[in-house]
Amino acid sequence: MKLIFLGTGSGVPSKERNVSAIALELLQEKGSVWLFDCGEATQHQILRTNIRPRKIDKIFITHLHGDHIYGLPGLLSSRSFQSGESPLTIFGPPGIKEYVEASLRVSGTSLTYELFYKEVNDGVIFEDESFRVLATKLEHGVTCFGYRVIEKDKPGQLQPEKLAAAGIQPGPIYQQIKDTDSVTLPDGRTINSVDFIGPNKPGRVITILGDTRYLPTLSSFIKESDVLVHEATFGSEEEQLADQYYHSTTKQAATLAKHSDVKQLILTHISSRYQQDEHLLAEARQLFINTDIAFDFYEKEIPSKS
Amino acid sequence: MKLIFLGTGSGVPSKERNVSAIALELLQEKGSVWLFDCGEATQHQILRTNIRPRKIDKIFITHLHGDHIYGLPGLLSSRSFQSGESPLTIFGPPGIKEYVEASLRVSGTSLTYELFYKEVNDGVIFEDESFRVLATKLEHGVTCFGYRVIEKDKPGQLQPEKLAAAGIQPGPIYQQIKDTDSVTLPDGRTINSVDFIGPNKPGRVITILGDTRYLPTLSSFIKESDVLVHEATFGSEEEQLADQYYHSTTKQAATLAKHSDVKQLILTHISSRYQQDEHLLAEARQLFINTDIAFDFYEKEIPSKS
Repeated sequence: MKLIFLGTGSGVPSKERNVSAIALELLQEKGSVWLFDCGEATQHQILRTNIRPRKIDKIFITHLHGDHIYGLPGLLSSRSFQSGESPLTIFGPPGIKEYVEASLRVSGTSLTYELFYKEVNDGVIFEDESFRVLATKLEHGVTCFGYRVIEKDKPGQLQPEKLAAAGIQPGPIYQQIKDTDSVTLPDGRTINSVDFIGPNKPGRVITILGDTRYLPTLSSFIKESDVLVHEATFGSEEEQLADQYYHSTTKQAATLAKHSDVKQLILTHISSRYQQDEHLLAEARQLFINTDIAFDFYEKEIPSKS
Repeated sequence: MKLIFLGTGSGVPSKERNVSAIALELLQEKGSVWLFDCGEATQHQILRTNIRPRKIDKIFITHLHGDHIYGLPGLLSSRSFQSGESPLTIFGPPGIKEYVEASLRVSGTSLTYELFYKEVNDGVIFEDESFRVLATKLEHGVTCFGYRVIEKDKPGQLQPEKLAAAGIQPGPIYQQIKDTDSVTLPDGRTINSVDFIGPNKPGRVITILGDTRYLPTLSSFIKESDVLVHEATFGSEEEQLADQYYHSTTKQAATLAKHSDVKQLILTHISSRYQQDEHLLAEARQLFINTDIAFDFYEKEIPSKS
């Protein structure tokens, strides 16, 4: 599981930072890549990574501002051009379907794969056997979401030494012990499966927020994330400007991380006014030491907890 | 007057060539820049040139395929963000307005300047005191245009030596001689202005074609261009493929240039299958020696004829 930041600037692209997009590589976990936002030239950034567009099967859009969506039609078209065949789902606020469909229709683009849309609301927006994704509304002047990606805990492993010590030989009985709470053995004994299974392997939690004003109430949504990605369009000296334009400062993001028991904070969506970002990092770390500032192509491996 | 190629690839962006866009810099002539097509990340390419988005006041779209238009919403938004205030006109096939308006509306973008649209048909699509632009339909499966940009001839200069020899002293009479065909002098003589004015300074002609099959009938539209920009998606070995996909080969473009008395041919829209383009250039030059193959950021100065 790895985060790859494809665009870390705000509003308009600069030579240093492209507009917003983040890839969550789940190749080991799911054989796929999820994308969070897709600003213009995201497909160009992808060309400089190992990501293959056809591996992207979900795109989560935080909000509809141009610097978060204008790369969608091109990426979808190129995925088609490069023989992508597996379906792709776009999660996002109302309007995302209208934008994508208009772009594809006017340009006469027929995709080689099925495209699904899912309008997002607060709550669980996706769930399968290994992941659950929650959404929550942020405060950005337009409908804007944060996404909490929860890897489900994996059941513990059978413990061969304990089984051997109890005289239980390998065989179909092992699977029964894994699958049911209690098992009656051939010799008549009934055992509690939990006594022969190791602890659950806890899943990881990645929370990626779209653009937002400082929202202390987000703490419960963010709680105990292994990684929190929070925007920091401005340095702490521009708190008023941040509030006016529905953005956050470095210190506000760090404060939220501190109060939410997260393990790692990554700041992104940095205004192009900051050519140097050392002081931004310093002021965030004063409050929350495990802070990084993302740059284009910055990668963060999120190790398994086992 | 200078052509700056911002994207010279076909279909999808590669690391070597971006998708289509060409700037015609008319800073000396009009204080402005015209753009021909605007594929995704054209604004990113512009960041690496001296072009200022607010100087772009006309955008000519050849056709609506994504690799020619997906950069429009972002460029228009950034021009606004960077305090562009002068109006901008987009010329293009029906549908271009729908695409741009949907993109701006869904993303909640309000521009700081007026945006006009002009649906293109065969014939004169723009004219002012110094330029005339003609359009003609090409053959690309969808409505697709070529544009012929004609700089109008400038009237010749007054010739001081001839005026002195005829005993005509400098004064307001000079302006009368420039403005009218014949002038009666204070001494009663009537002169023909043409006898005291040098030859017209001929304007330049730049023809930029969108994607097209080989169309020998284009010769009259292209005739005597100082520069002809023609697509060459394929090498001559792929004539069948070119025909099938409504594209042209190097040799077809060179043949057209040869039969149309153009001065310079520039090939663009090169398929990404050609990592090396030496043989493409060689086979075109066999037929038409004044051929160049464009690459991203290739510039062609078109010198004044005086």
